[in-house]
Amino acid sequence: MAKYSIGVDFGTLSGRAVLVNVSTGEELASSVLNYPHAVMDRALPDGTPLMPDWALQHPQDYLDVLSHTIPAVLKEAGVAAKDVIGVGIDFTACTVMPVKADGTPLCFLPEYVSNPHAYVKLWKHHAAQDKANQLNEIAAARGEKWLPRYGGKISSEWVIPKLWQILDEDEGVYKEMDFFMEAADWVIWRLTGVQTRNSCTAGYKAIWHKQDGYPTPDFFKALDPRLERVVEEKLCCPITPLGSKAGEITPAASTLTGLCPGTAVAVGNVDAHVCVPAVKIDGPGKMLAIMGTSTCHMIMADHEALVPGICGVVEDGILPGYFGYEAGQSCVGDHFAWFIDNCLPGSYWEEAKATGMGIHQYLRSKAEKLAPGESGLVALDWWNGNRSVLVDVDLTGLMLGMTLQTRPEEIYRALIEATAFGTRKIIETFRAGGVPVEEFYASGGISQKDPMTMQIYADIIGMPIHIAGSAQGPALGAAIFGAVAAGKAAGGYDSVYEAAPVMGKLKDVVYTPIPEHMAVYDKLYAAYNRLHDYFGLGGDNVMKELKAIRKAALEKGESGC
Amino acid sequence: MAKYSIGVDFGTLSGRAVLVNVSTGEELASSVLNYPHAVMDRALPDGTPLMPDWALQHPQDYLDVLSHTIPAVLKEAGVAAKDVIGVGIDFTACTVMPVKADGTPLCFLPEYVSNPHAYVKLWKHHAAQDKANQLNEIAAARGEKWLPRYGGKISSEWVIPKLWQILDEDEGVYKEMDFFMEAADWVIWRLTGVQTRNSCTAGYKAIWHKQDGYPTPDFFKALDPRLERVVEEKLCCPITPLGSKAGEITPAASTLTGLCPGTAVAVGNVDAHVCVPAVKIDGPGKMLAIMGTSTCHMIMADHEALVPGICGVVEDGILPGYFGYEAGQSCVGDHFAWFIDNCLPGSYWEEAKATGMGIHQYLRSKAEKLAPGESGLVALDWWNGNRSVLVDVDLTGLMLGMTLQTRPEEIYRALIEATAFGTRKIIETFRAGGVPVEEFYASGGISQKDPMTMQIYADIIGMPIHIAGSAQGPALGAAIFGAVAAGKAAGGYDSVYEAAPVMGKLKDVVYTPIPEHMAVYDKLYAAYNRLHDYFGLGGDNVMKELKAIRKAALEKGESGC
Repeated sequence: MAKYSIGVDFGTLSGRAVLVNVSTGEELASSVLNYPHAVMDRALPDGTPLMPDWALQHPQDYLDVLSHTIPAVLKEAGVAAKDVIGVGIDFTACTVMPVKADGTPLCFLPEYVSNPHAYVKLWKHHAAQDKANQLNEIAAARGEKWLPRYGGKISSEWVIPKLWQILDEDEGVYKEMDFFMEAADWVIWRLTGVQTRNSCTAGYKAIWHKQDGYPTPDFFKALDPRLERVVEEKLCCPITPLGSKAGEITPAASTLTGLCPGTAVAVGNVDAHVCVPAVKIDGPGKMLAIMGTSTCHMIMADHEALVPGICGVVEDGILPGYFGYEAGQSCVGDHFAWFIDNCLPGSYWEEAKATGMGIHQYLRSKAEKLAPGESGLVALDWWNGNRSVLVDVDLTGLMLGMTLQTRPEEIYRALIEATAFGTRKIIETFRAGGVPVEEFYASGGISQKDPMTMQIYADIIGMPIHIAGSAQGPALGAAIFGAVAAGKAAGGYDSVYEAAPVMGKLKDVVYTPIPEHMAVYDKLYAAYNRLHDYFGLGGDNVMKELKAIRKAALEKGESGC
Repeated sequence: MAKYSIGVDFGTLSGRAVLVNVSTGEELASSVLNYPHAVMDRALPDGTPLMPDWALQHPQDYLDVLSHTIPAVLKEAGVAAKDVIGVGIDFTACTVMPVKADGTPLCFLPEYVSNPHAYVKLWKHHAAQDKANQLNEIAAARGEKWLPRYGGKISSEWVIPKLWQILDEDEGVYKEMDFFMEAADWVIWRLTGVQTRNSCTAGYKAIWHKQDGYPTPDFFKALDPRLERVVEEKLCCPITPLGSKAGEITPAASTLTGLCPGTAVAVGNVDAHVCVPAVKIDGPGKMLAIMGTSTCHMIMADHEALVPGICGVVEDGILPGYFGYEAGQSCVGDHFAWFIDNCLPGSYWEEAKATGMGIHQYLRSKAEKLAPGESGLVALDWWNGNRSVLVDVDLTGLMLGMTLQTRPEEIYRALIEATAFGTRKIIETFRAGGVPVEEFYASGGISQKDPMTMQIYADIIGMPIHIAGSAQGPALGAAIFGAVAAGKAAGGYDSVYEAAPVMGKLKDVVYTPIPEHMAVYDKLYAAYNRLHDYFGLGGDNVMKELKAIRKAALEKGESGC
């Protein structure tokens, strides 16, 4: 009798479940639910306005994903719940929330419904930059030895800056919470009744180290005396390694999901990291880029190198036995969507409609006819700040080269090229830092749907690109970890190295760099690189100045918006 | 019996006639004709493709303007042709064309119909930049004394670079032409049968000087031996001062226009310069900005100063008795139109339609709610190069500060602000160069229709802005010169100083700077200024590099477009 595993991938705008045959890797069913509250970046559900740089989510949306998508895949596949041996999940990170001792999110309490700090701070919540700046300054001054492991900078997207922002701006919320949790770990808690913290987010996002643990109370005290005991007061709970079983489906979770009580549940994982076994990567030198609303870059090495501007290096942080490195670009698919929503003229929508194409497809049909360099444009892909290698969310977008002849498809292509230049910059930084990058794999929606973009990436990075075999890379990866949580005795696997070769998948297509394109893009990359360093490394701090002026204008409330 | 004058304004996209009562300045009728061939920047009428940076016009369109609009204003006003005592015209400049000895444009000859060089090179034809660069280098090396009078640089938009481009790329066309004429002077020739060259375009665009004449044959020989005798071979014809009568309507022109043979016709004038008396400006220190597709800045002083980067200083070049200075921005209304056509999302068009507003009006209704600085954006207004004060058409646009929260109305406002910063840069350059700027007047479509933009300009330049009283400033100015050509004896005036106070007009509205806005804009201007100098003065020549890469890509013909 065949056995199955379910992976649930919690993305930025939706959650999706995939039901996978454990012995073949075949995906029998998938189901998506768009989060009812999506990303809250202008106001709370009750209309409470949010300041710029905020990005929140509603945890009820995550429960809705479980209750909608898991029954849906069981039904679609015609698989009985008893034949599902394991469940894994993966999540965006660092996506964190304040909860009570019993796991109740603060925003579920009536008295906190209008309080922005009671909600989930999504990974792209960027309003803790002041705190991150202070933290980095203090850590550098103290010579904290963990700092270089994070590229020399802790991101404002991560746990401590976000938690410190709450303390700073609303001490009541800080005191009221019993735990500050990754949403990934909170969902596992809801499924199993067991509170865990996974080693991946703890390592990459909460400054935890396998040998050294968290930073010292002394360091936290230096940030703010009230933070001295933050680890035991708000982050308490042992760290559970990736690939472990967190627990089993509880009766309540069984009611929610339709799964059988006792079904094995893996510890939480991160959407990017979980994709690595899903493309059969099994060792060092093979970079995986997960290209969605943002891009995460995963690579392993057999040693710990300190690479400037990466998001982190964590032992066993991707797969056991290797040092896992993460880097990222915080604005990729989001970037293209922004362009479509805010910059694409009505005539293009009409023409797309007339030709029966989707708008991205129509735009690509025009953009793919352009030769490299033909647009005359170059952009810096910083619409959502720069994660790697500058680790600076206060940087903003730039585009240059526009003329009265510039057409929308040229702008669109330039934005795509800018994100590819950003990836090249990350690759070159890894190499310069002693981490070889020898092969390149891509997963995520863009890798599946957008051959033009993938060819541009190949031409710009100058390496062939291998494409994930599953359109649901993270969910498949989560299902792999679900099968590992179940164990061989139950019909699963005892390690991810056993599971990945069977359940992981690659497409036959490989995007190969075209030498003439590479030559042109080398020139454009040189221009990108100069602008990157000039605006990113303080040649002109105009982006930060403008952000400060904008903030002052908004706070003055002169705007009629 | 009332007497009338007609002014005809030849703009970039249309020509318009206005019929004015000479004794009151009242505009009784106006008529517009959009040029049937508009601006040809992609292909000739027969499909012959054009390279980037080309911008041509068809001279038949100018004749169509005369034959459509003059009869239309006579009819609309119910005025008999015999009561029209004078006609004046103004034109974009430098807009130039090759013609035969009898005035026939080369492009009217069947054998030249497919030859781009046979057509009118519109002011914004930018494909002669190589020639301008060489000319400037040679002139500087030779220490030509006229060079500083043009801000140290001759623009690629002007007569000699455009003529040299023809010689260089198609010597056949060069040899075939008997004259290379401003379109303004060509139209006057068609009306009167008398070939004239007006002192304004000769001075500002063809390097002619009241005392010194044209550059020497020696200089032209240094450019190209074939150019040694260019003045007598292609530019021959005495220069006629502004405010003179060129001649009288011929029988043929009477048939074309419906005007009586013998009606006085003023020498040709330039659209910007002709506006000065139309807003009652009568002396130094009063800057007039004519804000349309591009902006021209006119100011007079009682001395000749050498201001870097201005378009030129010409004695009697605006009004007799003063040194007239011109500066300009080559992309203003064009800039906003580009944005509307290429960047404005379909949803905005739909909402504008639903609210019954025009698209510019709808967009302004959103943009005017933004406080200065709230967009977080700053742009360099170089979508069509930079005329003043950098005189460099190879510069291109830049925008910076975009985030995923950036909305179309913020981009739109930033483009408007960028053009205002450009105007401020021109004002500050004049002042630093010893030409006082004490008052500011605005004419042209934007000044009439767009209070938001005018307030932004007032806030950015920090001076009150007086607004032209006529929506047809250039045509009114042309009509003033028409009345002066007729002379007092015929019911007109003997000088423009007599005519302007009667026929010129200002609106009651004055836009006054708001101190809090000025304070914010001072900061944004400082940022603009830094970027201006960095990208404009060689800090990073990326814009030129990208243009060269684009040109190579297009020439390679790899594009499928």
